[in-house]
Amino acid sequence: MRRTIDTASLDPLFKPTSVAVVGASADAAKIGGRPVDYLKRLGFGGAVLPVNPKSAEIQGLKAYPSVSALPEAVDLAILSVPAALVLPAVEEAAAKGVRSLIVFSSGFAEVDAAGRAAQQRIVDIALDTGMRVLGPNCMGLVNVSAGVYASFSPVIAMGQARPGNIAIVSQSGAFGAFAYTLARERGLGLSKWVASGNESDVDVADCIAWLAGDAETKVILAYIEGAKDGRRLMAALEMARAAGKPVIVTKVGRTEIGAHAAASHTAALAGEDAVYDAVLRQCGAYRARTVEEFFDVGYAAAVAGLPKGGNIGLLTVSGGVGVLMADDAVEHGLAVTEMPAEAQAGIRRLVPFAATRNPLDITGQVANDETLLDRALDIMLGTGCYDMLATFNAASGLSAERGAHMLGLAKHIRSRYPRLPVAFCSVFRPELRAALEASGCMAFEDPSRMIRALAGIARLAAAQADAAGMRRDDEGDRPGRLPEIPEGPANEVEALAALACAGVPVVETTLCATADEAAAAARKISAPVVVKVVSRDILHKSDIGGVRLGLRDEAAVRSAFDEIMANAGRHVAGAKIDGVLVAPMISGGVECILGVQQDPAFGPVVMFGLGGVLVEVLKDVSFRAAPFDRAEALAMIREIRGARVLEGVRGAPPADVEALADALAALSRLAAGAPALVSLDINPFLVRTRGSGAVALDAVLIGREHQTNQE
Amino acid sequence: MRRTIDTASLDPLFKPTSVAVVGASADAAKIGGRPVDYLKRLGFGGAVLPVNPKSAEIQGLKAYPSVSALPEAVDLAILSVPAALVLPAVEEAAAKGVRSLIVFSSGFAEVDAAGRAAQQRIVDIALDTGMRVLGPNCMGLVNVSAGVYASFSPVIAMGQARPGNIAIVSQSGAFGAFAYTLARERGLGLSKWVASGNESDVDVADCIAWLAGDAETKVILAYIEGAKDGRRLMAALEMARAAGKPVIVTKVGRTEIGAHAAASHTAALAGEDAVYDAVLRQCGAYRARTVEEFFDVGYAAAVAGLPKGGNIGLLTVSGGVGVLMADDAVEHGLAVTEMPAEAQAGIRRLVPFAATRNPLDITGQVANDETLLDRALDIMLGTGCYDMLATFNAASGLSAERGAHMLGLAKHIRSRYPRLPVAFCSVFRPELRAALEASGCMAFEDPSRMIRALAGIARLAAAQADAAGMRRDDEGDRPGRLPEIPEGPANEVEALAALACAGVPVVETTLCATADEAAAAARKISAPVVVKVVSRDILHKSDIGGVRLGLRDEAAVRSAFDEIMANAGRHVAGAKIDGVLVAPMISGGVECILGVQQDPAFGPVVMFGLGGVLVEVLKDVSFRAAPFDRAEALAMIREIRGARVLEGVRGAPPADVEALADALAALSRLAAGAPALVSLDINPFLVRTRGSGAVALDAVLIGREHQTNQE
Repeated sequence: MRRTIDTASLDPLFKPTSVAVVGASADAAKIGGRPVDYLKRLGFGGAVLPVNPKSAEIQGLKAYPSVSALPEAVDLAILSVPAALVLPAVEEAAAKGVRSLIVFSSGFAEVDAAGRAAQQRIVDIALDTGMRVLGPNCMGLVNVSAGVYASFSPVIAMGQARPGNIAIVSQSGAFGAFAYTLARERGLGLSKWVASGNESDVDVADCIAWLAGDAETKVILAYIEGAKDGRRLMAALEMARAAGKPVIVTKVGRTEIGAHAAASHTAALAGEDAVYDAVLRQCGAYRARTVEEFFDVGYAAAVAGLPKGGNIGLLTVSGGVGVLMADDAVEHGLAVTEMPAEAQAGIRRLVPFAATRNPLDITGQVANDETLLDRALDIMLGTGCYDMLATFNAASGLSAERGAHMLGLAKHIRSRYPRLPVAFCSVFRPELRAALEASGCMAFEDPSRMIRALAGIARLAAAQADAAGMRRDDEGDRPGRLPEIPEGPANEVEALAALACAGVPVVETTLCATADEAAAAARKISAPVVVKVVSRDILHKSDIGGVRLGLRDEAAVRSAFDEIMANAGRHVAGAKIDGVLVAPMISGGVECILGVQQDPAFGPVVMFGLGGVLVEVLKDVSFRAAPFDRAEALAMIREIRGARVLEGVRGAPPADVEALADALAALSRLAAGAPALVSLDINPFLVRTRGSGAVALDAVLIGREHQTNQE
Repeated sequence: MRRTIDTASLDPLFKPTSVAVVGASADAAKIGGRPVDYLKRLGFGGAVLPVNPKSAEIQGLKAYPSVSALPEAVDLAILSVPAALVLPAVEEAAAKGVRSLIVFSSGFAEVDAAGRAAQQRIVDIALDTGMRVLGPNCMGLVNVSAGVYASFSPVIAMGQARPGNIAIVSQSGAFGAFAYTLARERGLGLSKWVASGNESDVDVADCIAWLAGDAETKVILAYIEGAKDGRRLMAALEMARAAGKPVIVTKVGRTEIGAHAAASHTAALAGEDAVYDAVLRQCGAYRARTVEEFFDVGYAAAVAGLPKGGNIGLLTVSGGVGVLMADDAVEHGLAVTEMPAEAQAGIRRLVPFAATRNPLDITGQVANDETLLDRALDIMLGTGCYDMLATFNAASGLSAERGAHMLGLAKHIRSRYPRLPVAFCSVFRPELRAALEASGCMAFEDPSRMIRALAGIARLAAAQADAAGMRRDDEGDRPGRLPEIPEGPANEVEALAALACAGVPVVETTLCATADEAAAAARKISAPVVVKVVSRDILHKSDIGGVRLGLRDEAAVRSAFDEIMANAGRHVAGAKIDGVLVAPMISGGVECILGVQQDPAFGPVVMFGLGGVLVEVLKDVSFRAAPFDRAEALAMIREIRGARVLEGVRGAPPADVEALADALAALSRLAAGAPALVSLDINPFLVRTRGSGAVALDAVLIGREHQTNQE
């Protein structure tokens, strides 16, 4: 697998000046005929070179018998030949110096072991020569403005999407075709369209990275089934964020049944969904849960750009829909700030019975005097309170007269507030919709979809701001060092020592081999103590009577030592016992669970949750790919539904969230720096009252077993 | 307020044979001119009688100078006159024997106290005479098939919805007009349309009840901002359920900001949203959270009816969209059952690389052979496993040839499985969409919307089944009796006694006035005991040192008595202390919270939740309007997110959910039968291991203070 992203090498694929079609057909309806037809008819300005050993001419163009016989080393060759002929053609193309390939042909890794081997051979050639390969088993690529229709999708023949600033990348050809059609039917302008198929070489991460640098692309819509290398995807998403380009992702396989279905139909394995969810957020992408949301948020970002913040002004001619919009806005995390009193008074002077707080309901009076809308909006926006504006205009978009008024108003607002995202909700005649969009305003027919899309661009804007923050403190204080990771399970003393080395605060423990040592250790501790068995072979200590809590005197410690050693010997045959540990018994504070696991797609990820049975039942945990900084750790903490517990409830004082965040960040650096770490669970991690810090009370660490011939 | 629902009296309103328009205008564009114009032009077969003192003829019809001068007592008179002229016209109409009124005029309860008084006068006349009144401040009513356009809404002039089986009832005129337009633009057939305005007499409950008996109406869409009398709404919803008519509700004010906005713009107060949510579910209605969902679920119910169950078969030509649909189905509570092995083998014989479990992905192969779709569906539906079918067909709905194939397939399925709801998702030409719908199939352009709509009709079907269940065991065992409810706060002993009387199991307590009595009571209890202060004036006993737990001997009980009495005297000046109670200390099991409160709209409601801090933070509680039976109580228990705790987690045994359900049902009968009960909280209510019952350990009960001149 190609590890680093090299976008320059993708230029010949996305912006070819010459395209060969290998397996070109004279029949424009056949798969090998379609790209020739599309390239000829739909505005491509470069050379089109059909390759077909049986014809000297294809669709009116001079044809060549083979790739070797081509007059030049083309930027792009499309392979539309039976699977058995693909490898020879790839070899020929590489020898010829062709810069990139699109392989339509199926019959590779998606089919069987022989197919996987053949696909690997394609990859090897690509890596050896630098020739980039999209596919096999892919539907190809479109560069709308350049007329590069390097695809056999029949939806292109039904009509083309208009040129614009939205790029679509899809791992699925069928979904890609559907998305292309939806974009065309909705009138969304596209820059590029890619369906990446088996991703032998060029994958969705490469495409996102290239689009991040594409001047024609403002917004990237990515449909993802699973990434073989999650870290490349993360790197691409960060490139898009750095370029200020919002990425909206649909990732299927949210549920177990869904993920199972995903695994059964694609060569890429769908990773743990909660980790995907967290990582997409961490990298500033917006995850859409439906196709509709995918397009709505993409549309909003493409038409209006991103707002400065999440404070929304709502204006309605129907009180009820105003309430509905306010409900939606709050549920999607937007702020629905009340208008200043003076502005409210101004509205009341216009419409005595208006609702004036926000939503602003100027009532059916607007039917008698349309200028009420203009004057109310001038007051509302004049407050300077709002980062976005959403208006509900009932059915007036169907009326020629009222529609014209709406358009005038849209232009007026855009001229006075050129950066402010503005959305109208009504039922529209198509001309009015297009004119509103041309003026930079959004047009929606459903109020809830409008609010969700605005919340989406607000979330994307916040993600941009977060990125700036991360860059600032990325170089901050890093106390911990990387500990040695043992092979297989560590005992508790070793696990806590590794954490301490990495900068995670842990309870102080003493390893004792005898009852005398245990008693001596307990004497140095003023509080009651806890005694636990220490053994790499006993991970569930309580289950076998290996833990004694709340011991208050030396006699209790001695008898605990004896009991624990006896229990351990009795219950775990052959266990190597390292002794017991003696530690102060610490209570008070909020019990949390911190963990590290190796995700198949994203490698080391850190988990955070509160302790307790409900958390187990509700699965209220959050994830982040390691490493991350304190700011990200704080976001991770705030993300769980029960986060308010840390603020102090039922009279409890606020917990030391800063110490918790520092521990999570330290843990993430350990996770990122120790590939031999298989898993690590800190349970409980006690977060004490603000200012009093936090402490790991128990930990289970498992290192990788050393085996020959295994990476 | 009219308490009982009398649907027969609404016939003249919904199906008038003669309509007078009071304040009729010769100008068809004016509010008083529009209904005359609409009634004349749009197919009304009855008499239209304009009333206007200034003209002998209006829009070509003979006009009358006053209501008194009308030649007959019309079924319906529309009042479109200034507010000041409304009351005289109402009086005249009542005297004339007019059977129903629609009052367009505004300036009543929505404005000020004088308006409220005038509106009350209208109500009084309506109640005295039996004449029904819709409005004032309302947009009126449409009976599509009868051509009754008794509305001034301008959207009607832009085009009429086609006749059909969906009724729309809206408390908001602006929303009603928007909904009418959306229905028309989506091609949904309507039976009736009502915008109920101030609801002085006829309210949304009356309309739903009448529509439940309307032969033309199959599905009811209701937009609700708030019900003044929630029990009437419940009765109407139950009438619709008994008639087998699904009701889909949009109720705004889900969030605090939203509810605040609702309260500011309508005369009806938005009730506690969580209670609305529960009551709508309890009465079998489907609550839609967006306008889009409102129409999608209504559309599905109208086109396809209700399925037999919630098992969905998914067929796709795109693996990814299959996964997306499976994700959505699972998240919306549908079952995505795997196909039997034999059927899967049959599919593999058709398409070797198909995904065969469910979703069934027949892949892009269908582009080469469309009959694969037919054959795969025959196999899938032939299993008899599925209650509904959803298919994703990418963009093929735009292709004439493939669209024709799809329609043929739709008709084939409908003929073989006439009751099976079937949905196609694609991008459609309008003719294909209409033809699919005419064949009884649904057509969606978004896969997630399709699945949500199917989940909606499955939920409605389950609600119908629940109703049957409720009727069966409604007459079941009712152990409890109604206790006396004290005035003001009860002490704990009284509160527990009231619960015990009502059939809720409680811990046994002994009220003791002296330390000797307390010691004697403790002697009779083998376990450790708890001693608590008993006083109507001390509801938070722990806070003032009024509770001692885990007392194991007589001396401890005696000293606890002394301390508690001293603390109570010291901390609550003037409190009347009734003594202490002695009770066994019971632990083990799952701690729950049960409560009763009086909802402003729905009266007595019962609350259920688990104990613990996270529940408080996550607000994970459920509600039901009282009374209800054990089956409803079980539904209420299952509804909380943390319900799995009761099944036993972390090795704990399952809890006695049956005993919990019986207690909730008993509590609900107490709540329903004791209007003097202001609130009741049982905390904790301990649910023990299955078979061991449950017990209330503490309760706070507050009765209504007796006051003169207060109901």
